[in-house]
Amino acid sequence: MSFSPLIRHLIDALRGLPGVGPKTAQRMALHLLERDRDVARHLAGALATAMDGVGYCSRCRTLSENDICAICADPRRDATLLCVLQSPADVWAVEQAGGFTGRYFVLKGQLSPIDGMGPEEIGIPALLEAVERSDVAEVILATNPTVEGEATAHYIASMLKPRGIKVSRIAHGVPLGGELEYIDGGTLAHALAGRTPIL
Amino acid sequence: MSFSPLIRHLIDALRGLPGVGPKTAQRMALHLLERDRDVARHLAGALATAMDGVGYCSRCRTLSENDICAICADPRRDATLLCVLQSPADVWAVEQAGGFTGRYFVLKGQLSPIDGMGPEEIGIPALLEAVERSDVAEVILATNPTVEGEATAHYIASMLKPRGIKVSRIAHGVPLGGELEYIDGGTLAHALAGRTPIL
Ligand SMILES: [Zn+2]
Ligand SMILES: [Zn+2]
Repeated sequence: MSFSPLIRHLIDALRGLPGVGPKTAQRMALHLLERDRDVARHLAGALATAMDGVGYCSRCRTLSENDICAICADPRRDATLLCVLQSPADVWAVEQAGGFTGRYFVLKGQLSPIDGMGPEEIGIPALLEAVERSDVAEVILATNPTVEGEATAHYIASMLKPRGIKVSRIAHGVPLGGELEYIDGGTLAHALAGRTPIL
Repeated sequence: MSFSPLIRHLIDALRGLPGVGPKTAQRMALHLLERDRDVARHLAGALATAMDGVGYCSRCRTLSENDICAICADPRRDATLLCVLQSPADVWAVEQAGGFTGRYFVLKGQLSPIDGMGPEEIGIPALLEAVERSDVAEVILATNPTVEGEATAHYIASMLKPRGIKVSRIAHGVPLGGELEYIDGGTLAHALAGRTPIL
């Protein structure tokens, strides 16, 4: 084929984006080169800056460019209410749904022994420590409504119950088998409001 | 919403890609930050290098990082056969289809008076000059099989005919109303082989 090396390189690099196949990558490369070079330069800068500047909040473990994220740093957020999630995308989804005023703790995924993901790997000891050093009165388990997400919620509940912490699970208004980050805001807000005690 | 400024900035920049809406941009940003920081840094570099390094071939006007593109520089390509196209993407499509051994000339789109795109704007005078200074015996008009593409082909044919150049149009094996770059390689190769004289 007749792509020059720099264009070939750009198309290959665009294919690194999730959901972008060879045809889409070609179309993106052409669009940027022919119509939007400033957009492409802007994107290059944003990528480099974000990859170097964004780390994880040392308190809740969501993606953050500061040691303590904006939510953890906000004194208006209810420190007695902690919502446990599987991914920073889930924090974004709950925040976009609105209505939740507590704080978060983000696990590294869910328990999945077959993939070598045990309690240590997904950060459950750190969650227990965080709960112990805090004023948390209630932990809301908002892991995915999947088999692994349920198992993760039950495991965490079994660790927190003996410590006298109230533990709840988001209501099963969320469709079973779905992934939290793709659920519409209304359903999510409803599921959080309708949470039920667990164990 | 709770995106930190660098993440917000990255999501906004990703929305500059064609076909990428807010949800897809969020998903891409999360994927890159959580799983593929090296891919993102690589993409940042490829974007910057391509935007600065890729210009246009001074002969055929396709995208090229050299003054003369690889096709124009290839002595094995038939200099008597010139295929006229509307976009560098169409060159890529014809090259991927295979079977064409001539050279190209890329217009800046098609005649569209309503959009202020006249012969000058799309580069027809430069095409006529290129034909005159060369050994071209036949010009194949491979503009899009749309109303504007046909009008562009007929206008070019009317300018070349008096100069004693053989002018042909790609066969209407290509579906009418379609855009050349999205047509499968087999159809394209067939349409080029089945070209018919014009005017
Ligand atoms: Zn935080
Ligand atoms: Zn060229």
